[in-house]
Amino acid sequence: MEIDQKNQEKTGSTHVYDWVKTLPCKIKTKALEIAKKTKKVGKDDPRRIIHSLKVGFALTLVSLFYYVRPLYNGFGSLGMWAVFTVVVVFEFSVGATLCKSMNRGFATMLAGALGVGVQELASLLGDKGEPIVLGFFVFILAATSTFSRFFPHIKARYDYGVLIFILTFSLVSISGYRADKIIELAHQRLSTILLGGAICIIISIFVCPVWAGQDLHNLVASNLEKLASFLEGFGGEYFEVYGDEDSGMVPKEDKSFLLGYKTVLNTKANEETLANFAWWEPGHGSFQFRHPWKQYLKIGVLIRKCAYQIDALSAYINSNIQTPTEFKIKIQKTMHENELRIRQGFERTSHGNQNDDKPFFHFYTYRELQTITVASILMDIIKSIEEISDSIHELSHQAHFKNVEKKLSLEKLPQLLHRGSVKPVSDGGGGGGGGDHVIIEVHEKSLDSPENGNPHAPNTSSRDVVL
Amino acid sequence: MEIDQKNQEKTGSTHVYDWVKTLPCKIKTKALEIAKKTKKVGKDDPRRIIHSLKVGFALTLVSLFYYVRPLYNGFGSLGMWAVFTVVVVFEFSVGATLCKSMNRGFATMLAGALGVGVQELASLLGDKGEPIVLGFFVFILAATSTFSRFFPHIKARYDYGVLIFILTFSLVSISGYRADKIIELAHQRLSTILLGGAICIIISIFVCPVWAGQDLHNLVASNLEKLASFLEGFGGEYFEVYGDEDSGMVPKEDKSFLLGYKTVLNTKANEETLANFAWWEPGHGSFQFRHPWKQYLKIGVLIRKCAYQIDALSAYINSNIQTPTEFKIKIQKTMHENELRIRQGFERTSHGNQNDDKPFFHFYTYRELQTITVASILMDIIKSIEEISDSIHELSHQAHFKNVEKKLSLEKLPQLLHRGSVKPVSDGGGGGGGGDHVIIEVHEKSLDSPENGNPHAPNTSSRDVVL
Repeated sequence: MEIDQKNQEKTGSTHVYDWVKTLPCKIKTKALEIAKKTKKVGKDDPRRIIHSLKVGFALTLVSLFYYVRPLYNGFGSLGMWAVFTVVVVFEFSVGATLCKSMNRGFATMLAGALGVGVQELASLLGDKGEPIVLGFFVFILAATSTFSRFFPHIKARYDYGVLIFILTFSLVSISGYRADKIIELAHQRLSTILLGGAICIIISIFVCPVWAGQDLHNLVASNLEKLASFLEGFGGEYFEVYGDEDSGMVPKEDKSFLLGYKTVLNTKANEETLANFAWWEPGHGSFQFRHPWKQYLKIGVLIRKCAYQIDALSAYINSNIQTPTEFKIKIQKTMHENELRIRQGFERTSHGNQNDDKPFFHFYTYRELQTITVASILMDIIKSIEEISDSIHELSHQAHFKNVEKKLSLEKLPQLLHRGSVKPVSDGGGGGGGGDHVIIEVHEKSLDSPENGNPHAPNTSSRDVVL
Repeated sequence: MEIDQKNQEKTGSTHVYDWVKTLPCKIKTKALEIAKKTKKVGKDDPRRIIHSLKVGFALTLVSLFYYVRPLYNGFGSLGMWAVFTVVVVFEFSVGATLCKSMNRGFATMLAGALGVGVQELASLLGDKGEPIVLGFFVFILAATSTFSRFFPHIKARYDYGVLIFILTFSLVSISGYRADKIIELAHQRLSTILLGGAICIIISIFVCPVWAGQDLHNLVASNLEKLASFLEGFGGEYFEVYGDEDSGMVPKEDKSFLLGYKTVLNTKANEETLANFAWWEPGHGSFQFRHPWKQYLKIGVLIRKCAYQIDALSAYINSNIQTPTEFKIKIQKTMHENELRIRQGFERTSHGNQNDDKPFFHFYTYRELQTITVASILMDIIKSIEEISDSIHELSHQAHFKNVEKKLSLEKLPQLLHRGSVKPVSDGGGGGGGGDHVIIEVHEKSLDSPENGNPHAPNTSSRDVVL
């Protein structure tokens, strides 16, 4: 028994020893993993690193300002509001920072004034009535404000303001201070909030600014680019055409462009957030104040619709490889039955050589099946692209873009879109507030010709769609 | 000139008079509009009204508690934290409230302790070194914390905690108080925060609770239901079959069920938010603590994939009506060319009566085009439904649901899914923590038969898929 105990102790200590021994290794692995993730997050968008440094700088600035020169009754009660403001208000984009600053400022003022009024009213009712009246108003305003946050419009733009309104109103109305004392406090608090907010806004706008509007524009443009990449790559993949050097079509080893469109499917929430923030932003780059950001959302909806169709196309082509065998057999059986019917139909009217027809029918049935489905989905895609072009034209009209052409010729059955891009081009290189124009080029070129394995495709030549 | 001025004044006063006269009418219209919107927001989800009342109640409670019995040095500095906590922490669902409370509590403690440490360290370095060390730490921690908020995992679950961490650390480290004073303050603050948080959590859980987990489950189930409604309705619309009373198929006047699936396309963000909040929730209803909520997200992805395919199907069917005429002509021309080729092929081998074949060829070409495309998309849909059924089976396995059957017979070419539902059924009616089971019924029945205008469809009988 003693030996057992000794052995157990020994085993126990060996376990501890092993654990301690492997600990540095484990820590090293974990640290490497975190470093790898950190590098990825920073690499995905280097502006994140700059933003973090900006927040650190703003907070240090405002903290030390109040630490070195404490105002009135010491840092604790007042400088706190400046720190609060910086931490809560400083967001990634200028629009988001402005949204929160404005909401915080106006809500504080409004709720403060209302709070003073309610407190004055309550104080008229004596010691017994006061808490009842205060409680009543806090309840009513908190409940209605909370409910108002469920309105989509308020949720999108004024959510933070409503929160600060409830907070400030509750604090002021039940603070127990007299009105003159409150006004003095309010003055000090508002000035510290304003200082904090101003520091955030200034750093946000003048130090490597991140504009939500510009991001929205780029997001929509890059989504369009992804669809174009797919359609370009799809041509090479599906029709197996390579080496047309004039059109820049070369075989690509990297197939990732065929999956790029998938990210387009999930950008709705991101687009809406950016559009809401962009609404607050002053003019910047090629965009004026009150640029028609909402129109980007409409374009985004149409782009996603097109991406769904591309997804259907992609799924169809993959399903040709992956369809469960039982389905394939069923389809083939049905085809075979159809073939027999047609045959029998002909047999009644002709006495030709049946064996000669058979390969032709086989070809006709299986090859038209694939081509017609693909053509049908491509037709839907073309329709979507027409709609996208219309909505971009509408945008250029609303935003007073110059130099927008709209030519869309649909005389030929289109198969492939070769390139799509939307870019704002500032006038003459200078950023001097001049007008700007948008160019979207959608080049379409047929890769579907009898030589490329599709004997039923019409002979279409290359065509350009400039919109 | 005098007359002009008088006239202008008169016109001006008339304008003001008109404005004042129409003002009550305008106010009335606006008020009615707001009342209408309010009614809609409340009707869409009556739990919103209850939530607003709950917040009002919690805030009034905590406010008056500190107003009537001010602790230590008066309400202003301490009760404030309880009000803060209630306003910021009380969210719509139990999970969201727990998430914020926990984040706030732990972040405050951690940052407070770290702040005291840093301040002690800084005080060792004398008056000149102190602000430098403090500033350095505030900068480093604010920047790294802000950067950490870009990590998706942290963003989803601990975003608020990181915010509170920066806030508290900055406040404590630069407060200028000595450590013993800080510990006293921290004790008071933490207790007020705990009180505020506890009130929120208790009211949130025990007064008409809104469970994010239950909502997620219902959302996924209702999405599945919407797909089923479409497929059921689509049968009636596309194959024009009515009046089969045995199967419950009756002509529906309301076509809204054909559009219901569209809302499914945009529930991704909502599902992710709910899953994140559900992670914090204790066991409730039929769900245990640590229910595999992540699996719902996987099911959600597959449901959306299926909805995209339904969208493609819907778009294809609509495009049959709406395709621009020029495309139709092109397609018809291509078809005609193909027809001629086939004809010529037969002419070479036979000398039958051409006029007799023509109608048959027309029929074959235009009718197989539609049917094959629809069949191909339906095949993809069936494949998606198989995937959904697999992932639901995986969920039932992970969640230890009882009584789950999986039967999926795909012997026959499926055309229509008749009904789909996922519902958790608690064991024996009592909510006593017993196991629960999920039943998903997907009944499929063919409406595609030779009598219904599709001569190439195989004869399929009704079949059930229970998974």
